[in-house]
Amino acid sequence: MKITGEALIGGAAVRGNGGSFKAFDPSTREQLEPDFHMVGADQVDAACRLAEAAFDTFRATSDAQRADFLETIAQQVVEIGDELIVRAMAESGLPRARLEGERGRTVNQLKLFAELLREGSWADIRIDSALPERQPLPRPDLRMRMIGVGPVAVFAASNFPLAFSVAGGDTASALAAGCPVVLKAHSAHPGTSELVARAVVKAVRLCGLPPGVFALLTGTGNGIGQGLVAHQSIKAVGFTGSRSGGQALMAVAAARPQPIPVYAEMSSINPFFLLPNALAARGDQIASGFAGSVTMGVGQFCTNPGLVLALKGPELDRFAFKAAEALKGVAACTMLTAGIASSYQDGVHKLAGHGAVEALAKGEHAEGKGAPALFRTSGKDFLAEHALHGEIFGPASLIVACDSFEQMRAIAESLEGQLTATLQMDEGDLEQARALLPVLERKVGRILANGFPTGVEVSTAMVHGGPYPATSDGRSSSVGTAAIQRFLRPVCYQNLAQALLPEVLRDDNGQNTWRRRDGLLTQQ
Amino acid sequence: MKITGEALIGGAAVRGNGGSFKAFDPSTREQLEPDFHMVGADQVDAACRLAEAAFDTFRATSDAQRADFLETIAQQVVEIGDELIVRAMAESGLPRARLEGERGRTVNQLKLFAELLREGSWADIRIDSALPERQPLPRPDLRMRMIGVGPVAVFAASNFPLAFSVAGGDTASALAAGCPVVLKAHSAHPGTSELVARAVVKAVRLCGLPPGVFALLTGTGNGIGQGLVAHQSIKAVGFTGSRSGGQALMAVAAARPQPIPVYAEMSSINPFFLLPNALAARGDQIASGFAGSVTMGVGQFCTNPGLVLALKGPELDRFAFKAAEALKGVAACTMLTAGIASSYQDGVHKLAGHGAVEALAKGEHAEGKGAPALFRTSGKDFLAEHALHGEIFGPASLIVACDSFEQMRAIAESLEGQLTATLQMDEGDLEQARALLPVLERKVGRILANGFPTGVEVSTAMVHGGPYPATSDGRSSSVGTAAIQRFLRPVCYQNLAQALLPEVLRDDNGQNTWRRRDGLLTQQ
Repeated sequence: MKITGEALIGGAAVRGNGGSFKAFDPSTREQLEPDFHMVGADQVDAACRLAEAAFDTFRATSDAQRADFLETIAQQVVEIGDELIVRAMAESGLPRARLEGERGRTVNQLKLFAELLREGSWADIRIDSALPERQPLPRPDLRMRMIGVGPVAVFAASNFPLAFSVAGGDTASALAAGCPVVLKAHSAHPGTSELVARAVVKAVRLCGLPPGVFALLTGTGNGIGQGLVAHQSIKAVGFTGSRSGGQALMAVAAARPQPIPVYAEMSSINPFFLLPNALAARGDQIASGFAGSVTMGVGQFCTNPGLVLALKGPELDRFAFKAAEALKGVAACTMLTAGIASSYQDGVHKLAGHGAVEALAKGEHAEGKGAPALFRTSGKDFLAEHALHGEIFGPASLIVACDSFEQMRAIAESLEGQLTATLQMDEGDLEQARALLPVLERKVGRILANGFPTGVEVSTAMVHGGPYPATSDGRSSSVGTAAIQRFLRPVCYQNLAQALLPEVLRDDNGQNTWRRRDGLLTQQ
Repeated sequence: MKITGEALIGGAAVRGNGGSFKAFDPSTREQLEPDFHMVGADQVDAACRLAEAAFDTFRATSDAQRADFLETIAQQVVEIGDELIVRAMAESGLPRARLEGERGRTVNQLKLFAELLREGSWADIRIDSALPERQPLPRPDLRMRMIGVGPVAVFAASNFPLAFSVAGGDTASALAAGCPVVLKAHSAHPGTSELVARAVVKAVRLCGLPPGVFALLTGTGNGIGQGLVAHQSIKAVGFTGSRSGGQALMAVAAARPQPIPVYAEMSSINPFFLLPNALAARGDQIASGFAGSVTMGVGQFCTNPGLVLALKGPELDRFAFKAAEALKGVAACTMLTAGIASSYQDGVHKLAGHGAVEALAKGEHAEGKGAPALFRTSGKDFLAEHALHGEIFGPASLIVACDSFEQMRAIAESLEGQLTATLQMDEGDLEQARALLPVLERKVGRILANGFPTGVEVSTAMVHGGPYPATSDGRSSSVGTAAIQRFLRPVCYQNLAQALLPEVLRDDNGQNTWRRRDGLLTQQ
């Protein structure tokens, strides 16, 4: 497959009529061929209008048809072959094994949504039978189902060039919901994006769907994305990226004549609690796993453990020493983009220079790379200094030595919304864990015991979300089957003739789909 | 029960430290005793802090305990007795039968949510089993459930002094979700609000719940509500009222350091399609039912049919004549407030003076009252004049005589989001109905055939919602059991010990609650 640097609109390669740019290999620090052409406002408009025009046809497909479509995308992504891995390695600096794993995850994610569609209960079907004899008034026949909200703008993430980009979780869940997708490629991996987008466009064609079902917009800067979110044809937004980026899109969406939901996954420091018994019994082992979690993928995961909370004392000192030793043993590695590397270095520099912070490990500065860093502060200082609560995206973490469990709990209360919280705990820590749980439930989307927050399972029960600013909308998850719910809205049909009802709502439940009849779940 | 004009904060009557005001009887145009005391900013703050403090205790109650609580509220509301009906009649101008019916609806609504809690599947429980042998990586044990978002600010509606006020649908669904409620009483019926709020406070006490679970804030103007929505302890908002009121709260919520969801039910003209065969066969009968629906409750329903769409011709002329005759036979009636009556008169006056509009029926102006009104315009003019698309809250409707079915469909496309759309149709209209359905599904929350949109069933399959500006959030319903979902967010527990898991997520499913195990629904 040839990378041409074009956008894909209406099923065809379209040369962007804005300026051009090149991809960049962060490992070699060299530009990559070819030129990519940025789309203009008229091309954004065309993609959005085509998406709107395709919506009714696309959402009228059966669940089985959309499941086939998702599986066809998965197959087409695999069929790109090694070219995809090679290009993604060049554009991201990520190693082969990671990208092959990520491709597997992307494919499995598409298949999981196909499975969800075939199972059918995603549509939350409800039927309240007519009660013609009810006094004082009869009850009409009422039937409800979920439908897609409309065309969705998806912003690809820099840190998952496959699993959270063109055919990633946001795209898979939106397409599963019956929503066309207009995808803004990330400018850090435009070639990878084009390859995957060509696979999606081919799947659209193979499945006989209208070409407006998917478009790829190519470009740099904020203008394209803001125009996309402001476009009246777009009805929801999926985004993974920085807090400032997500907030900017939230502002555009709220200022529209018709405001729309934005699902932005933005910022999290993922508190990691070392409870006393676990720390005493397994401190060394936890320190080693912790260092692995902090440095995995050069720390470029949303769920990176950026904050460690424990009671001060010799056990914590030993943990800090062991973790620092382990981190010092990890070389500085190439980060995804020059911008991410320089932001990381700024963040580390600021923290190292903070009067209340001691640096336990801090590698040498190296252009475009991220060296692991570990810092330490006191519970009192952490509570007093809001500047210490921010995310440093990269392989850095801050240990907070608490004076007491009460202070640790107060710190938990003081945190902003988070994607995850981890409890390292043993039998004897049960009481403290129990006291922390209600706080954590209010603050985070996922609570882990005795694990590490990096590594997010794509499954039914996963929540990758959390109260603001972890995400813009704490009622949602961007990973796992629950992600489909972001792009659905309910419609009720009252006294409609069987012939007019959508098939899934008719009396005859030929597929034995789970439905709620008069309040009770049944497959009849 | 004595009405004292006090707020209820922390389970106690508290005299507002702002100014005072009196309730007003719109029928007699006289003020009612006693003085009501407006709460000050410090009292708003106190109520919100108490709600936040009560949240963990309240949400830790079992489903059965919260079900008992809702039923206790229902019982306490009934026990107020006739005093409640008499006061509500005086404050709203609504007749006894309507208010007795509304009380029944309020009580049944509380009981419906109690039933939902006892059934248990509202929490969307999901369990993905650990797969320790999976390659390349084991899968952890993952369990998800929904929990309440936190304290909810509820704004009582003027047009349902019982069913959408103090113990109405928003309150019932928020409490069911385990969220404390801080209720802003509507200044049009403060005495009714106080009576019901005292019943709720008594139920809180009888059930041994923390007093912060419910508070009543009394006052006029926008300051109290805006302070309430801006308060950091509040995590979601339920509102029924005007478009400008809802938009103002949306702006406050979006500007917070932590933005929160607002569920505002705001504005709808509820298009009513007269398809040709139905119009020819049953025009007179539909005209009579239509006039009843327009004038029910002096037109003060969100689902009032404010727009009629039909093909021009003698059948429509006859329908218009019959409907106008029926409406002329209905006397002007007292509206809920002087403000509503004067807005209604303004709206009718503007429409009557519009160059493209013909008045078919228009009663005499009468202070504080609303006389039924019927107007007519052409499809072409309706498409050209956005001013004709606005809601006139009251017993008025606009007939649009369309040149063709294509024009009728184009008009449907041109409409803003709506709560409902109605199809009056016979066998022979099936094809046209089929062509309209996809448009209506995108535009409205509920589609009815051969009925009238007023009269909203409180049930499992009901959707009282719709795309903006029908509501601020088209993914939601404010009526029926789906309303609970507005106040929930998911939390995932990874590898937590059984002892630490919430009871509903443990292996032992003692209550046989519906749960999704490895993607499949089961009661095991």
